[in-house]
Amino acid sequence: MKQVEICFSPELIHLHELEGKIVVVVDIFRATSTMIAALANGISEIKTCADLEECRAMASSGYLIAGERNGVKAEGFQLGNSPLAYLSGEYQNQKLAMTTTNGTLAISKSAGADEILIGSFPNLQATASYIQSGNKDVLIHCAGWKGKFNLEDSLFAGAMVKALETTHEAEDDGAISMKSLYEKEGHNLKGFLSQASHAKRLQNHNIDSDIDFCLTLDLFSLVGKVEDGILTGIKQ
Amino acid sequence: MKQVEICFSPELIHLHELEGKIVVVVDIFRATSTMIAALANGISEIKTCADLEECRAMASSGYLIAGERNGVKAEGFQLGNSPLAYLSGEYQNQKLAMTTTNGTLAISKSAGADEILIGSFPNLQATASYIQSGNKDVLIHCAGWKGKFNLEDSLFAGAMVKALETTHEAEDDGAISMKSLYEKEGHNLKGFLSQASHAKRLQNHNIDSDIDFCLTLDLFSLVGKVEDGILTGIKQ
Repeated sequence: MKQVEICFSPELIHLHELEGKIVVVVDIFRATSTMIAALANGISEIKTCADLEECRAMASSGYLIAGERNGVKAEGFQLGNSPLAYLSGEYQNQKLAMTTTNGTLAISKSAGADEILIGSFPNLQATASYIQSGNKDVLIHCAGWKGKFNLEDSLFAGAMVKALETTHEAEDDGAISMKSLYEKEGHNLKGFLSQASHAKRLQNHNIDSDIDFCLTLDLFSLVGKVEDGILTGIKQ
Repeated sequence: MKQVEICFSPELIHLHELEGKIVVVVDIFRATSTMIAALANGISEIKTCADLEECRAMASSGYLIAGERNGVKAEGFQLGNSPLAYLSGEYQNQKLAMTTTNGTLAISKSAGADEILIGSFPNLQATASYIQSGNKDVLIHCAGWKGKFNLEDSLFAGAMVKALETTHEAEDDGAISMKSLYEKEGHNLKGFLSQASHAKRLQNHNIDSDIDFCLTLDLFSLVGKVEDGILTGIKQ
């Protein structure tokens, strides 16, 4: 059996070996959920940017630009970080440049992995199936919140450990704990997460429908994969 | 209500505010369990040392010296890190100098807190009662394993969050998750932890009876408190 482990924060990623592994980057509320929604609804590729300035500059190269800071759309940007903005399909074949508080950092800190995938509940099973079609160890890299452990990313990681259990062993303490927690709370994700600090922050921004979307399993048969800083979708 | 939060690793402690809080340092296998066993069985005070050299030097000042690295007694030391060594009471009124892989680091990185306590399953309720007799926010600081999340410290933290629930609210994502996990797995701690990487390491050292001790609740009505680098016991 191959192994699956969890890193709960980009601040701990230096403690993990990346080489030879598939790293699944997770920022459930909302960066990676939005990326998958965009790719599944016509966006051809996504460039993840380290900061707002770099992202804004991409507009002159014909990119749509999406940026948020602390949960709110950044000034001068066409799109924020809501996955719902893409569902109408109005951005067919357009390229998107995107920067977010925590997700972009987690992607850039995953450099060195054999493959970098983008995980979300809406494409959980597609991602698991893609992983299981190969034979590599997996590290789930939670974006967290400003370096801290965060509940929604960690629970997704637990769901992924569970989805991989026939091919990937969880000897890692983080993977053991989050698989067990998902087994207990997975049937009531929204209720359980409503206690969480980040969900409360999001509720303050009136984006309850975003939360519903981000917690919905298996809407898309699409894998998100980052190569050379560019994220594209692979239809399954 | 006051708040309770969890820090899963000394590598993340800089993200937490310590001022005004009680910090409970936890290194279940085995540093903090051993400290509490020692204080409850006659040791008058414990000096925690940053490294083996500093610890060894304390022998000339009349201290018993205890040191381990990677789970094994360090060369030239009288005692390793087994809590069982103290239970006979043969070290009445002696002072102990101690250094461990992860626990000492977590204590030194807790500097700045209003109070620093030492937590273990054998004195969980005593520690909770002491905290509840005051009115301060609590941060549970898990020593982890070489910077990583570790299952036994995190589950203890969940047990402490649960023990404090009538006085301390868990809004923190780590506290929410570990309280829930403890509710699920707390009745079968040893079985659940037997999957964990650190427990497996300890089993390799044939210290199954140490593990049993470290997972036993409420053997001692004693609080461990660090002041000016010296740990003493407060009888409840």
